[in-house]
Amino acid sequence: MLLPEPLARLVEQLQALPGIGPKGAQRLAFHILRTPREQAERLCDAVRDVKDRVTYCSVCHNITDTDPCGFCTSPARDPRTICVVEEPQNVSVVEKTGGFKGQYHVLMGALSPLHGVGPDDLKIAGLLARVGGGQVDEVIVATNPTVEGEATALYLARLLKPLGVRVTRIAMGLPVGSDLDYADEVSMTRAMEGRREF
Amino acid sequence: MLLPEPLARLVEQLQALPGIGPKGAQRLAFHILRTPREQAERLCDAVRDVKDRVTYCSVCHNITDTDPCGFCTSPARDPRTICVVEEPQNVSVVEKTGGFKGQYHVLMGALSPLHGVGPDDLKIAGLLARVGGGQVDEVIVATNPTVEGEATALYLARLLKPLGVRVTRIAMGLPVGSDLDYADEVSMTRAMEGRREF
Repeated sequence: MLLPEPLARLVEQLQALPGIGPKGAQRLAFHILRTPREQAERLCDAVRDVKDRVTYCSVCHNITDTDPCGFCTSPARDPRTICVVEEPQNVSVVEKTGGFKGQYHVLMGALSPLHGVGPDDLKIAGLLARVGGGQVDEVIVATNPTVEGEATALYLARLLKPLGVRVTRIAMGLPVGSDLDYADEVSMTRAMEGRREF
Repeated sequence: MLLPEPLARLVEQLQALPGIGPKGAQRLAFHILRTPREQAERLCDAVRDVKDRVTYCSVCHNITDTDPCGFCTSPARDPRTICVVEEPQNVSVVEKTGGFKGQYHVLMGALSPLHGVGPDDLKIAGLLARVGGGQVDEVIVATNPTVEGEATALYLARLLKPLGVRVTRIAMGLPVGSDLDYADEVSMTRAMEGRREF
């Protein structure tokens, strides 16, 4: 009796989404209840379109609605530099810097023996094939600065270097705009190790 | 090129929901992208069902999938006590206390001259009709403890008292489990004013 069944079901569905708790789900459900029907339809259409039309690029495994994706086919992107990331959403983080004009390769995860993720579960073979073609000068490994991301980066470096390509790792240190008071030891250690001459 | 068009559109739709910012919307969109199709369909069905099947009770204006709603028709609910709230979602807050066995009346808002909400915009006439029937002993005004909620409560009290009904207001004071150090002056004042004998 607390909530009408359809509303309770919507709350339940919304709660299954990441970062949405019981209160937030209820708030969203009531919002959708109040919202004009057309707007609710637009939300549903958008969800359905994403499921129908978004796939993964067969070259770089980034998400795309064309195959190969825009990054892999654009003449404005330099195929001699490949930035390797763990997940498709990481691509937009690099893109937003506006400074990278190369292509991408999405691993679709990181090595994590604890979670049963081994090299065969990642899109590594495709990366080796791309680099092995001899068209690539540098592979920038932009996996996450976590244990799994670091392990994956080291693993990739070991596979890629013998192919005669330059393999680099993104810098770790203190985030810009942060305060040393709040820096953790590991980031501070990396910041010291990675110091550069003025 | 940053995000495929369908995904960008989903991010945009999700961002229109309350409490969901650009980062959260992107995270949700990627989650929906990864989620099995059936689950995405269930979310859409739930949204559509809420729009199709949930309406407002013609008696108390609470949300319901039957009319009159379960609260208004249940023999277990005492029609002599009516709890007045601003919004349908407030009903579940009162219900969760488990201590209220009366019926509800949802105003669908609160008086707010600044936002152009006057008495005619609220479901006050229906409340007066219910109370005027002579079956009601007490009206508990549980509008929000805000300027608008207080103004609405005072306005209702002035209309209801002449009908010979007891009109009460929920208590204001310090929230249980809080700390005096963090209490605001107004809540503390109310807590002092509302003190009770042991």
